[in-house]
Amino acid sequence: MHIPCETRKIALLAGVLLPLAFSTSAALAQDKPKEHGDSPAAAYEPSMTTLGQINVEIPGRKPGDPVITPSEFQAASTIYFERCAGCHGVLRKGATGKPLTTDITRGLGYQHLIDFITYGSPAGMPNWGTSGELTDEQVDVMARYLLIEPPSPPEFGMPEMRATWKVVVAPDKRPTKKMNDIDIDNLFSVTLRDAGQIALIDGATYKIHTVIDTGYAVHISRISASGRYLYVIGRDALINMIDLWMDPPATVAQIKVGAEARSVETSKMKGWEDKYAIAGSYWPPQYVIMDGDTLEPQKIVSTRGMIYDTQEFHPEPRVAAIVASHYRPEFIVNVKETGKILLVDYSDIRNLQVTEIEAERFLHDGGFDSSKRYFLTAANARGKIAVIDTKEGSLTALLESGGTTPHPGRGANLAHPTYGPVWATSHLGDETVALIGTDPEGHPDQAWKVVQQLYALGGGSLFVKSHPNSKHLYVDAPLNPEADVSGSIAVFNVDDLTQEEPEYTVLPIVEWAGIAEGQPRVVQGEFNKDGDEIWFSVWNARDLESAIVIIDDKTLELKHVIKDPRLVTPTGKFNVFNTRRDVY
Amino acid sequence: MHIPCETRKIALLAGVLLPLAFSTSAALAQDKPKEHGDSPAAAYEPSMTTLGQINVEIPGRKPGDPVITPSEFQAASTIYFERCAGCHGVLRKGATGKPLTTDITRGLGYQHLIDFITYGSPAGMPNWGTSGELTDEQVDVMARYLLIEPPSPPEFGMPEMRATWKVVVAPDKRPTKKMNDIDIDNLFSVTLRDAGQIALIDGATYKIHTVIDTGYAVHISRISASGRYLYVIGRDALINMIDLWMDPPATVAQIKVGAEARSVETSKMKGWEDKYAIAGSYWPPQYVIMDGDTLEPQKIVSTRGMIYDTQEFHPEPRVAAIVASHYRPEFIVNVKETGKILLVDYSDIRNLQVTEIEAERFLHDGGFDSSKRYFLTAANARGKIAVIDTKEGSLTALLESGGTTPHPGRGANLAHPTYGPVWATSHLGDETVALIGTDPEGHPDQAWKVVQQLYALGGGSLFVKSHPNSKHLYVDAPLNPEADVSGSIAVFNVDDLTQEEPEYTVLPIVEWAGIAEGQPRVVQGEFNKDGDEIWFSVWNARDLESAIVIIDDKTLELKHVIKDPRLVTPTGKFNVFNTRRDVY
Repeated sequence: MHIPCETRKIALLAGVLLPLAFSTSAALAQDKPKEHGDSPAAAYEPSMTTLGQINVEIPGRKPGDPVITPSEFQAASTIYFERCAGCHGVLRKGATGKPLTTDITRGLGYQHLIDFITYGSPAGMPNWGTSGELTDEQVDVMARYLLIEPPSPPEFGMPEMRATWKVVVAPDKRPTKKMNDIDIDNLFSVTLRDAGQIALIDGATYKIHTVIDTGYAVHISRISASGRYLYVIGRDALINMIDLWMDPPATVAQIKVGAEARSVETSKMKGWEDKYAIAGSYWPPQYVIMDGDTLEPQKIVSTRGMIYDTQEFHPEPRVAAIVASHYRPEFIVNVKETGKILLVDYSDIRNLQVTEIEAERFLHDGGFDSSKRYFLTAANARGKIAVIDTKEGSLTALLESGGTTPHPGRGANLAHPTYGPVWATSHLGDETVALIGTDPEGHPDQAWKVVQQLYALGGGSLFVKSHPNSKHLYVDAPLNPEADVSGSIAVFNVDDLTQEEPEYTVLPIVEWAGIAEGQPRVVQGEFNKDGDEIWFSVWNARDLESAIVIIDDKTLELKHVIKDPRLVTPTGKFNVFNTRRDVY
Repeated sequence: MHIPCETRKIALLAGVLLPLAFSTSAALAQDKPKEHGDSPAAAYEPSMTTLGQINVEIPGRKPGDPVITPSEFQAASTIYFERCAGCHGVLRKGATGKPLTTDITRGLGYQHLIDFITYGSPAGMPNWGTSGELTDEQVDVMARYLLIEPPSPPEFGMPEMRATWKVVVAPDKRPTKKMNDIDIDNLFSVTLRDAGQIALIDGATYKIHTVIDTGYAVHISRISASGRYLYVIGRDALINMIDLWMDPPATVAQIKVGAEARSVETSKMKGWEDKYAIAGSYWPPQYVIMDGDTLEPQKIVSTRGMIYDTQEFHPEPRVAAIVASHYRPEFIVNVKETGKILLVDYSDIRNLQVTEIEAERFLHDGGFDSSKRYFLTAANARGKIAVIDTKEGSLTALLESGGTTPHPGRGANLAHPTYGPVWATSHLGDETVALIGTDPEGHPDQAWKVVQQLYALGGGSLFVKSHPNSKHLYVDAPLNPEADVSGSIAVFNVDDLTQEEPEYTVLPIVEWAGIAEGQPRVVQGEFNKDGDEIWFSVWNARDLESAIVIIDDKTLELKHVIKDPRLVTPTGKFNVFNTRRDVY
């Protein structure tokens, strides 16, 4: 099977060629306020609204701005924050997604925005309209919202953080031994995106042990070095610290670290286990080092600064992936817009030493090679992979991934039959998967080069996955506008990688889940502890049935489907053992 | 002789008790535009003006703002930048001077501002009106200017810097040996403040070798490690690099590094001599590392970030003093508002390692102890001195200076008869001089403590000075509102420091200079290379006669007065040898 390239081209043309009906929005300016029941006058006055629970001022209307009412502005701000800011930025300056500043949106015009939001693009823009995730009315308000200036969100420093910080159960009130019979190392922490929860699911029985309220759309789960504490961070920058020894596991501390965030990590260096947690924010652009047992914020560091190459000031360099070095007492912090990888030495946070490595713009996510010495991370909008040697603390390589917008997640490590240890990433913007040599000693000619390019289902892929015990590489495509593609998984057999263009097997996950309503997206394979099963989320709209589908890694056959009314919009899943040991 | 404390109290009371005539400025709003010939309408429109040659937008008028015309706004911006921003900040958030944000200035009111600008205060605010430096009309426009929001100055990143960068004489076109007969090591680089020039004056003959056009109000001169190149930086952030081997010495490279700046330094570590220069800016808040032989900008680093203690974001953490370590390939960078001392490792600027030491807010200037291992620097508005061990790269001590607003310049090192090596600083806000023990091995009980407090002429002191070959400590008070005080120098004999409250000798420098017009301020003693003469600037208004007065250090008698029509507003003087070897 090969690539449905036609699908890509057609959808792309649809986005580009649809008529640019009007760009000054005069009709909107006359009609819209009446439809929504607010007086036209109110639409012109600055007003307070909330963005991620923080008050912001609606910026003044400028000549030519389409009219938007305060209630529309508030609703649009919330949708923008929940759906758009992740890729396009709180200040709309773009990153994984394109910039949406008003100079650009007004050039594109209202109708173009409507079409793009409705139909998406195979380069990774979801089809919010046709997928049913936004109503026509919501698409309309978003198009108008994008034609006016964005709200300026407030700072979020130590006073604001401390005001949100809660120790629910103090360290000395927590159990001194594990109080439940959960096999913690084979537990899965599953993001229930739109519910603002995580589910803790048993890796052997598939039973939901408990569901815990968290921030909105938990982006990742991370585990303390000891394996006891689970840290989850919502896109709204709320961190929950969960004690897995409690019966049932429950939140023992909580903090909000900003208006929008993605990353949390814990200190892993020998001697520093469970000592610190760190979280990186999208807004404000900063990271914070916290006590590992209480989340008490200790040190906030702004990332505002110069873009590495042009050396111009950037007001919103967002913090993307953070990993903890296994070789030094350091956190490795990706700063997106400025293209810098920070090595943050946590051994003395009052005299903080940071090495700022010039890498490439739009750093996003990444993971370790199989030796855990090298950190490979995507500069996604630049199509590049930066490689950091965490032992030496330096940039080892910067290479083209060969595709459009690499999005590795943590990536996948394979033992390639020809090239030895390789690390894989798929792409948001096309169907390719890059295999990159990671063995400078055993395979120096292949090290930090794309040794092979695979072709999977289509654009819109978010994650690849494998396991040291598996002979398979799994590739999803959840953001592809085609339901056939977004509902399936491509599986490559590692033994077939000797072929120039290896075939893949298609797993019809949505079909196996038996879900007919909606356009559920199949996302993020995650192995169990033993590496003999892989779990996929079948992520449907909030009011429709979702599922988790479990595949036998040896046979590629369906093993189990988890369905439960509590499984609302499941996305990321994090197996405790694999996550805390960086096994992927 | 002792302190004219009465003077201080009276002037201070005058500032506080003068009637707060009006704070909403209704009368001004009606009258002022007519007086200045601009139409009132124009006063309400945003307009472009220049701030340090950079276009800025006049912010919109708000209800209750006093009217100011665009031309007044422009004139006031220029005056503010030249006279006020140094202490009060481009964004008026305060540092050495008090904050002047509109919430504060509107509380004080127009008349209070008029009085304060006119009469100054002994805490360091100069008497701009009574000294003749500002006219009544200028004082009026400044008071109105301070009642409206400040202009927001633009960024100044690599594109802007490179646009200003000029290599006047390329390195391979420069002489290969010294082409003049100047005794370079005994040359003085003298700031001619309001002329935007420096004079190079011979230390033996007192002859002006040459006058070189520079930026406005050159703040300091620094010398490359080899002694060949002189770097001067204006308050307008223009750096001139002067080749002292040329005949006459002349500018070989030039760059503007921002809108406002104070500090320049050169790499001094063995193996890195003359390799890099660094400059710190007040606006934008950043520093830049440049090639030492061309000033080509290589790396710009923003200092925007969190205040060290409250951990709230500060938009304008200005870079104050920078020194070069003699023990490591590091620049030591004072960041004022956030209270951080940065150790910037220049051995690999593409992978820049910076250690951020939490010290105290409002770091300003400072210098080395006599061993050159320790850097003592004032957190002036907090009344503290931070001590950095440049060999170990850590904070050694943080101590109260015992006075109000310490302003050491580089300070003065003395061999105290009782306490061994001490370092001295005077104060902007009072007449005290603090002597701080700097010998942790020989005098551990006294190390990093104020071992003695001296009482000099009065508040408004900027600089103390001594020399390893001198038995004297000289203390100026140029910003004191009293002409007697600002025109004199106090001299302590080191042998007298055994007394509890040692007396000082008063040198009537202005009288000796024979200048009757104006209120010249005597500022900044600087020794010649041999340490047997000290030079003082007699700094008069721009259109009045100034002078340099040279004193015999042994006898404290007048040795020579340099007068020359070219000596316009002389202030800082930098002896080449003492500056490049950090002898003070």
